[in-house]
Amino acid sequence: MTRADSLIQELIEIVGTRGVLYRKEDLLAYECDAYTIHRGMPRAVVFPATTEEVAGVVKHLHKQRIPFLPRGAGTGLSGGAIPIGGEVIISLVRMKKLLHVDLENRLAIVQPGFVNLKLTHSISDKGYYYAPDPSSQYACTIGGNVAENAGGAHCLKYGVTTNHILGLEVVLPNGEIIELGGVPDMPGYDLIGLLTGSEGTLGIVTKITVRILKNPEDKKTVLAYFDEVEDASYAVSDIIAAGIVPAALEMMDTVAIEGVECGTYPVGHPPGLKALLLIEVDGIAAGIDEQIDEIVAVCRRRNVLEVRVARDEAERGRWWANRKTAFAAMGTISPDYLVQDGVIPRSRLPEVLNEIRQISETSGLRIANVFHAGDGNLHPLILFDARKPGETELAVNVGSAVLRVCADAGGTITGEHGVGIEKKEEMRYVFTGEEIEAQTRVREVFNPDHLLNPDKLFPKPGRCAEMGIIRE
Amino acid sequence: MTRADSLIQELIEIVGTRGVLYRKEDLLAYECDAYTIHRGMPRAVVFPATTEEVAGVVKHLHKQRIPFLPRGAGTGLSGGAIPIGGEVIISLVRMKKLLHVDLENRLAIVQPGFVNLKLTHSISDKGYYYAPDPSSQYACTIGGNVAENAGGAHCLKYGVTTNHILGLEVVLPNGEIIELGGVPDMPGYDLIGLLTGSEGTLGIVTKITVRILKNPEDKKTVLAYFDEVEDASYAVSDIIAAGIVPAALEMMDTVAIEGVECGTYPVGHPPGLKALLLIEVDGIAAGIDEQIDEIVAVCRRRNVLEVRVARDEAERGRWWANRKTAFAAMGTISPDYLVQDGVIPRSRLPEVLNEIRQISETSGLRIANVFHAGDGNLHPLILFDARKPGETELAVNVGSAVLRVCADAGGTITGEHGVGIEKKEEMRYVFTGEEIEAQTRVREVFNPDHLLNPDKLFPKPGRCAEMGIIRE
Repeated sequence: MTRADSLIQELIEIVGTRGVLYRKEDLLAYECDAYTIHRGMPRAVVFPATTEEVAGVVKHLHKQRIPFLPRGAGTGLSGGAIPIGGEVIISLVRMKKLLHVDLENRLAIVQPGFVNLKLTHSISDKGYYYAPDPSSQYACTIGGNVAENAGGAHCLKYGVTTNHILGLEVVLPNGEIIELGGVPDMPGYDLIGLLTGSEGTLGIVTKITVRILKNPEDKKTVLAYFDEVEDASYAVSDIIAAGIVPAALEMMDTVAIEGVECGTYPVGHPPGLKALLLIEVDGIAAGIDEQIDEIVAVCRRRNVLEVRVARDEAERGRWWANRKTAFAAMGTISPDYLVQDGVIPRSRLPEVLNEIRQISETSGLRIANVFHAGDGNLHPLILFDARKPGETELAVNVGSAVLRVCADAGGTITGEHGVGIEKKEEMRYVFTGEEIEAQTRVREVFNPDHLLNPDKLFPKPGRCAEMGIIRE
Repeated sequence: MTRADSLIQELIEIVGTRGVLYRKEDLLAYECDAYTIHRGMPRAVVFPATTEEVAGVVKHLHKQRIPFLPRGAGTGLSGGAIPIGGEVIISLVRMKKLLHVDLENRLAIVQPGFVNLKLTHSISDKGYYYAPDPSSQYACTIGGNVAENAGGAHCLKYGVTTNHILGLEVVLPNGEIIELGGVPDMPGYDLIGLLTGSEGTLGIVTKITVRILKNPEDKKTVLAYFDEVEDASYAVSDIIAAGIVPAALEMMDTVAIEGVECGTYPVGHPPGLKALLLIEVDGIAAGIDEQIDEIVAVCRRRNVLEVRVARDEAERGRWWANRKTAFAAMGTISPDYLVQDGVIPRSRLPEVLNEIRQISETSGLRIANVFHAGDGNLHPLILFDARKPGETELAVNVGSAVLRVCADAGGTITGEHGVGIEKKEEMRYVFTGEEIEAQTRVREVFNPDHLLNPDKLFPKPGRCAEMGIIRE
């Protein structure tokens, strides 16, 4: 029996025959996640069903010095769940139970493989919901959301994942199990905050206590069309300056609008628009109409072409489906696309969008912008054709240039998609060597041997910036 | 020249003659902070005026292996700024500038010695404020707030300090200066979250970027009197269950009410009340009255004796002054008092308050409860007389017993005052040895020699629980 065979045998002993994939044809689906530029082949994929099985697998791999990484639904956009090559993937999709709901204290306990949207579906009849709503929420898991500190359209008002995590059970890279938190503001260091967004490099989350919220009494949604990007940008700032905190404040530009109108959920946006805003207000019913009036007035002052309020829940739902499937819709107007994810101060929106347009013109690649304008969280979608020689590399370089623009505008290189495999080198745009070292020293504490999700999140020390495109 | 003398000389070279205190009579004021049970004498107190001076002092002390700790206004309630004995205190009160205000992007940059309330005062004419409002906000510094992750009455709706910190400049224990963040959701590990609430054990914060908020359009405040603690407790749960998120939801019991009526700001609460609630709602003007009506209706269903809305800002101000000076007011009804700070699930309020009453009866010490009921963040004030032999020790043990009740109810041992010197041993109520070790390993990364604020926050490994009362 070869060493590889014996490893598979040992993993099967822990999780059962149906809990291990190891044949090449079965592994192909695990070569990449929703970031498709890089690929890497795992040695095996295991599917533990309990915390103890996760700990057992990790202990075994730790003893054998075999690298490994956790994976949820594989919807990540920066390659955090892609192997470098040879790791064992620990898939958490079998651990998909809703363990406990405590409405009185507003919390729920889930396993990491529990799908984001299912939580809201499970408690909506009682009048509650789970706030963080990444566009992939119908598929992505809450464990993955914790790893990436996922955001979403409604995070403007309600905060990103880290603001909703009350407790974690974690399997450390040596197989130890620890419990963190469970109530707000635990004493000691905020290790829950540290683990959340650590992109699977500090531990594997096996149980999550999340905050749940009471449904707002009412919500209303506004759609506004503009023929100048600047007008839409200024409207965004004016709405916030008016003291309104919308539940969501989304923007799309010409190319993005063209995309969504060719996608699965077209809603009839007129052709040739320069920008649209999708603005939602929620809360106590009594205050909503005044806020909507104010938003409409702001849009008018900023030369809106057309502005209207969703007539009913059905129309509101169509507008959101149109927005939330924007990334996928790009596939209808371009053979390939690369999603970027920069953050800028809200006040710099007009100039940064202008610079992105210039990068697009210089490179010859179209760029669609569809993003969380209220947060200054841009999502430039770089459209390219991987079949054309050099165009993948060009798209990657364009993405990198866009991130540089964000960083130079006082922003940063990721808002909610993470660094993963994709943006390791771009970390140097926003951190000094000392600052990166301070972070990697924290990784050493939890993950001293780099067996857990190796070569993610941080650039290699001392290496010059380089963009490696791996195509196996 | 003795080694001690030469140290003073070297510190003077860095921060100037007027920047160092070293004579015994000058050091006495630095023996304790607002936690008065423990005392410890520093070797010297230095007052750097710039980040470079902080780094210079730290580098020097690091080289000489002399322990040191940072100190703000000394309003901390768990002894985080008290020396064990022999440390150099680095006071940050000279670094008290408001460096920058950016209204458009809703942020301000302050030095650590800038007083909390001054920030709101500096921007209120433009219609903005800084949300975290510890009761000591007229005196406490934002640097100290970061160290303790300070809360306050209005943190129910707006979150504690960590939710308002966008960036930090930090001097590490070896004198290195690092910058963290500056925009929301920086990539990499959340070191800002890790530093916030680390009680001065990971680094010394020298510059802070905070989020500022637009003033709510309107706010209204309700005062409700009850003759059963249970009724008031259920009213708290009912208000939250109704989908209202009050800006503040405070509770006081009989002893606390007696105290505040003997304090500096009596407002004429009738004698013999069992509980009062102070409830504030803020936001868009249009929704406020409906929420107030609902709150009043909830109180009536819970057998309120009297409930009324503040007639004007002056009355609202008096109610808040009465509440915010509650701790100090205890000095008028008891020679000494010990503030505790436990957290419990909101739904367990009635039973935990009952258990605290039993501890009070058993011990013979009166306990006043004045607290953030909406957060389940209790502040039992244990009244005692330090002149009576053994009563200080008794008060400390009562405090510890109260924390055990909170921990056993599924809560924890501090909501906002920190662990400091006071609650190191009680950390064992809520963390296993492995979990404490995971945290101390994080400390090792930043503070490997334990020169920075030694012997705080964590119990000594392997030691049995013991309560050491130090009186020099």
